[in-house]
Amino acid sequence: MTGSTTGADARPHVVVVGGGFGGLAVARGLASSPVRVTLLDRKNHHLFQPLLYQVAMAGLSPADISAPIRAVLSAQENTQVLLATVEGVDLAARRLTTDLGAVEYDYLILAAGACSTWFGHDDWARHAPGLKDLDDAIEIRHRVLAAFEAAEREPDPARRARHLTFVVIGGGPTGVELAGALAELARTVLARDFRRIDPASARVVLVDGGNRILQAFSEDLSAAAAAQLERLGVVVRTGLRVAAVDADGLTAGDERIEAGTILWAAGVVGSPLARTLGVPLDRAGRVCVLPDLSLPGHPEVFCIGDMAACLDDAGAPLPGLAPVAMQQGRFVAGVVRDALVGLPLSRPRFRYRDKGSMATIGRSAAVAQLGRLELTGFAAWFAWLAIHILFLIDFRNRAVVLFNWIWSYFTYKRGARLITGSGLPRAAERPPPSTERDDCANGAAP
Amino acid sequence: MTGSTTGADARPHVVVVGGGFGGLAVARGLASSPVRVTLLDRKNHHLFQPLLYQVAMAGLSPADISAPIRAVLSAQENTQVLLATVEGVDLAARRLTTDLGAVEYDYLILAAGACSTWFGHDDWARHAPGLKDLDDAIEIRHRVLAAFEAAEREPDPARRARHLTFVVIGGGPTGVELAGALAELARTVLARDFRRIDPASARVVLVDGGNRILQAFSEDLSAAAAAQLERLGVVVRTGLRVAAVDADGLTAGDERIEAGTILWAAGVVGSPLARTLGVPLDRAGRVCVLPDLSLPGHPEVFCIGDMAACLDDAGAPLPGLAPVAMQQGRFVAGVVRDALVGLPLSRPRFRYRDKGSMATIGRSAAVAQLGRLELTGFAAWFAWLAIHILFLIDFRNRAVVLFNWIWSYFTYKRGARLITGSGLPRAAERPPPSTERDDCANGAAP
Repeated sequence: MTGSTTGADARPHVVVVGGGFGGLAVARGLASSPVRVTLLDRKNHHLFQPLLYQVAMAGLSPADISAPIRAVLSAQENTQVLLATVEGVDLAARRLTTDLGAVEYDYLILAAGACSTWFGHDDWARHAPGLKDLDDAIEIRHRVLAAFEAAEREPDPARRARHLTFVVIGGGPTGVELAGALAELARTVLARDFRRIDPASARVVLVDGGNRILQAFSEDLSAAAAAQLERLGVVVRTGLRVAAVDADGLTAGDERIEAGTILWAAGVVGSPLARTLGVPLDRAGRVCVLPDLSLPGHPEVFCIGDMAACLDDAGAPLPGLAPVAMQQGRFVAGVVRDALVGLPLSRPRFRYRDKGSMATIGRSAAVAQLGRLELTGFAAWFAWLAIHILFLIDFRNRAVVLFNWIWSYFTYKRGARLITGSGLPRAAERPPPSTERDDCANGAAP
Repeated sequence: MTGSTTGADARPHVVVVGGGFGGLAVARGLASSPVRVTLLDRKNHHLFQPLLYQVAMAGLSPADISAPIRAVLSAQENTQVLLATVEGVDLAARRLTTDLGAVEYDYLILAAGACSTWFGHDDWARHAPGLKDLDDAIEIRHRVLAAFEAAEREPDPARRARHLTFVVIGGGPTGVELAGALAELARTVLARDFRRIDPASARVVLVDGGNRILQAFSEDLSAAAAAQLERLGVVVRTGLRVAAVDADGLTAGDERIEAGTILWAAGVVGSPLARTLGVPLDRAGRVCVLPDLSLPGHPEVFCIGDMAACLDDAGAPLPGLAPVAMQQGRFVAGVVRDALVGLPLSRPRFRYRDKGSMATIGRSAAVAQLGRLELTGFAAWFAWLAIHILFLIDFRNRAVVLFNWIWSYFTYKRGARLITGSGLPRAAERPPPSTERDDCANGAAP
């Protein structure tokens, strides 16, 4: 279908699936190449995922961390953007099947990302939503704000305590960010707004099955993060594996925790599109790519970002971070450009240049690992702030987010405390998830 | 239930239903009075409704025009805010029934607003959504942005033209604002973002049954508004009564208009709560109040804002505008304060001080009636901008909105072009409404 619209255009057709950091980097890297580029995404917006937890915690609006993919690429004349859901790939015929019909390609770059997984416990999803897109974030914001409202309305002390207990499952960066932001929300933002409850009495528990949080960081930074979280009032519980999740709480280890709100930050799995390819996947459902990021036997097909299992020199898969996806995208654009002019016979190998990683915990609290340099506290937080604002996709978002943060920093207020949609749950009822919670059940899609 | 929590508190209990302009004005007017105030709303946020069309047209984010009611009133110690749905009023027993249980009052102020009405054609609602709350605005934003996407994907010229036809029904301020903003969206914001369609070729039709748009304004201003709309490319069709609305368009007069998106700005009706009172209502379902805004036979119950039919000196009902609701709220707070000290024996009469009204059409285009002064074009637009920013509920929103406007003005971009939720409709399918479209079918509620 896409082929037909450009008629007799003889330029090779490069199809990019996914408008995240990886997909956009590929498209931009081909801006002045003699190809036509089609970027497919089932959403109309690029999402600045590192700040998604801020939307979930009412600090930022959805539009502050998003940009229409069309607008991002509008000046790039060889590129078209289509909203489409990719249903499968016929590698032999070099053709995608989508809800818009078939799309033929000469080069294909799969950058469809990852989605939450509950490790076979799909029934947990409705009680413990994950955080992968804006709908997830709005749903979590709704649940968190509604929990305080429900506590304010609840005369029974036990039920009130349950409404005021928040459990975050998973001690990676997302779990740490959610737990820290939640504790801050309760202790500062909401502190004076209720009459019957004291929001500061809310319990925020961060549960992780491993022996420390932030395992991707050094032990020192792990310990510093745990200490900073505890200073905010978060109870950090490591070595506690979740055995069951239900509407009223969870069982972790031998322990029962009654909780009105449970958030899932414990695992992601490669886009279900990977499973339709018929190529080897790793345990996390990611495509095992060759060192040049192409698929075995298909030098014209690449897979990048969270959807790919790309091993580093030590044989460990690269982490699911924006810089990895962006570097891979630029790398693949280069490989395609080289191939267009017949160069080189042997492909280069992708190498990730690790400029560091960081996790934020709260106001003036974060940890950062920048090469050998380890930062904690205000210095790490300030570095985190500066880098995240610099990387925001366009000027306006940068300015709005900066303004929101300065405002929040000095006033202890948050700007996006909205409960929209179905409103408050009645009595003991929980709000229905606004979207299908197990993203992976939705069929293959970017 | 509310009574019990304050125990033996002997202060009179003032219950305010609704956290809009009217309800907030009452609560604030009683800040230092020897009463306890309970404000009930089924939403957690005050909404700056005059700018709601900007959210629907992707110019502003929902949080930019909202403020948590709790935060607005948090410093006011005699006031509590409860999220509750009011189901009915027992005037004789001085008691509300809510989903939280019964709430007893000494004074009751009903300020539950209005909702869209399709004049008995409730089946039109799903094809032609109204614009009364944030969920409506997000739904309309979704439909409008998705229509351009659908047109981009559509090979058939007739269907493509239908996707690019937008009809706004109702030539009041909301309809004029929607039509103008829609035309601007198509002609400037989206102009360069598509590859197969020219968004500027979109047809925006404003349909009204009367002989001119903006009937509340002078004939000169009506004509000026129509001319400004036509300059933006809007087709203004007056004297055309809508006879039928379906998924593919509408019949108006003898004419069939094929349209992919239809918006309803043709009528509102008082909150369904009014119908539970057993008091006389006007044709638009509003409570017929006495000159002091109280209910006949119930000097302790008041009704204000869009929910009330308050007649001016000429016997015409006051318009549903924020200044009317705010002045009425302050007036009723004064009546209650007087009553607390036993004054006066005869109640004053509410008089609306009309400081003017305005409608915006687009960039540098508006009409304003300020007493005898009539403004059009840039002067009216600038006055509109200044007044709306001044009235935004708190400092942060003011600054963010101002920034967004300056940014949009100079870049012709809009910041909130998000399609969230269920994503795009497939093929010819329409997106399901995100909420029940006929607000009035939801039972009595603020």
